[in-house]
Amino acid sequence: MSPRIDPGKFRAPNGGFSLARRATSVAPLYKSKEHHAVQLETYKGQLSQLQEMLYAQHTHALLVIFQAMDAAGKDSTIDHVMSGVNPQGCQVFSFKRPSTEELDHDFLWRTNRCLPERGRIGVFNRSYYEEVLVVRVHPQFLAAQHLPAQCSGKHLWRDRYRSILDMEAHLQRSGTCVVKFYLHLSKNEQRERFIKRIDDSDRNWKFNAGDIAERAYWKNYMQAYEQCIEATSTKDSPWYIVPADDKRNMQLIVAATLVDTLESIDPRWPKLPNSGRAELAKLRAQLLGEKD
Amino acid sequence: MSPRIDPGKFRAPNGGFSLARRATSVAPLYKSKEHHAVQLETYKGQLSQLQEMLYAQHTHALLVIFQAMDAAGKDSTIDHVMSGVNPQGCQVFSFKRPSTEELDHDFLWRTNRCLPERGRIGVFNRSYYEEVLVVRVHPQFLAAQHLPAQCSGKHLWRDRYRSILDMEAHLQRSGTCVVKFYLHLSKNEQRERFIKRIDDSDRNWKFNAGDIAERAYWKNYMQAYEQCIEATSTKDSPWYIVPADDKRNMQLIVAATLVDTLESIDPRWPKLPNSGRAELAKLRAQLLGEKD
Repeated sequence: MSPRIDPGKFRAPNGGFSLARRATSVAPLYKSKEHHAVQLETYKGQLSQLQEMLYAQHTHALLVIFQAMDAAGKDSTIDHVMSGVNPQGCQVFSFKRPSTEELDHDFLWRTNRCLPERGRIGVFNRSYYEEVLVVRVHPQFLAAQHLPAQCSGKHLWRDRYRSILDMEAHLQRSGTCVVKFYLHLSKNEQRERFIKRIDDSDRNWKFNAGDIAERAYWKNYMQAYEQCIEATSTKDSPWYIVPADDKRNMQLIVAATLVDTLESIDPRWPKLPNSGRAELAKLRAQLLGEKD
Repeated sequence: MSPRIDPGKFRAPNGGFSLARRATSVAPLYKSKEHHAVQLETYKGQLSQLQEMLYAQHTHALLVIFQAMDAAGKDSTIDHVMSGVNPQGCQVFSFKRPSTEELDHDFLWRTNRCLPERGRIGVFNRSYYEEVLVVRVHPQFLAAQHLPAQCSGKHLWRDRYRSILDMEAHLQRSGTCVVKFYLHLSKNEQRERFIKRIDDSDRNWKFNAGDIAERAYWKNYMQAYEQCIEATSTKDSPWYIVPADDKRNMQLIVAATLVDTLESIDPRWPKLPNSGRAELAKLRAQLLGEKD
């Protein structure tokens, strides 16, 4: 077995940093396709075991957030990394265009409703972070939110960071740990993947002409991500910037980080007190003595 | 018409105060039953008009919270004060014993789902404040919330105040104004009302033997309310301590405070820009020229 990947290498640094200088590609963390599969299976086994204990202990929850540019591999990473976990203990929510009812509430409302219960892992494929990412790049989307004039001034983004930080701190105090992944794809690799989606008829369903138009805003997105990650990465609710040009690498890094995060929650099988054991012994005797 | 009641008199003061020294009864703000009815109707008319503008403007919401000891008149006040408002623009939610699903989330989750949409007034008959009131008086209820050990220490109440303050500040920034009423009943008046519920067979359905047992915790409740109001009354989201021994007085004070609060939001009929007027004129001509 290879040594555990250190997630600390990918954690967003404290204070300012340049997203442009963060690698979208690192040397492979696996020696072959088979070696990748073996490592991933090991992590998945650990994840599954930790999630079972989280479920049994029933005091904590884990919220996992995935954000990225299109084609970075959010869906496939969720599939490859989480597929070993009991679906009863893991809920995935994908957030697309908000409904009118959702737009008529505060920007955290629609995702708050989907927060994981104790003992569960909740996965957000996109999240409330879209409100300081795509909405920041396209501020015209704000019009549909009908914000009061005094709420939509120049402090809007700073205020939204504040709301997010406060809410994540509240979740932490309530037993829900939040971990955030930014899958860091290069503009060039995105182009390659879009071309594949056009050339390969089996992938055509994934292709969306609108995604190509968004490439014109690449720099704005990078700026929005950089500022967002800088403002909202905390000790308790960190961002991880995962090189995304190699999907296999990305799967291993995400899986290792999740194992690490769950280990830090340190879930344990609940132990029965002695009084409980005596009660169980009594009930067992009762079952044995039962007459048909 | 009598001069408007000044809600400022009932607003919780900044900093420490003694709930025991706050009046549960003040001199009547009406001269007769009829005078009360006329005043209440006037306030209700203003409320209805302001709510219509709030609805049309569609940028702000108002969240009204009622907290009180049993029999203080939460239900009847909501009935008497809000019954003139278009129900399409006003949603009342009563929060009783939480479900298992609700207990398995953070303590703000179940009420967050019921927050009012833009243009609406949301009324909470009891609220997330129960989590620092009844739960504080009976901390054994915490066991059902399965909080992690490190979240349920001595800082629990202070942490919950922090979560509430942060959430209400977030709502304020999102266009939702929060106003909170504590209906301040004397222990003696509560006894009178319980006796009426027993003596009057039409009121028997309201009587609950458990309510009487709670009287033994009166001082603990008063302490929990005092600390809660002190910690969570802010300029933007104030608490009002409304003398509740006289229900008619209470209705007038609550109604006047709501009118005052809505006026501070200052909702207005949306005005169409000139380009919009030209478009309307065109459509009007089209309707007139339509052939069967």
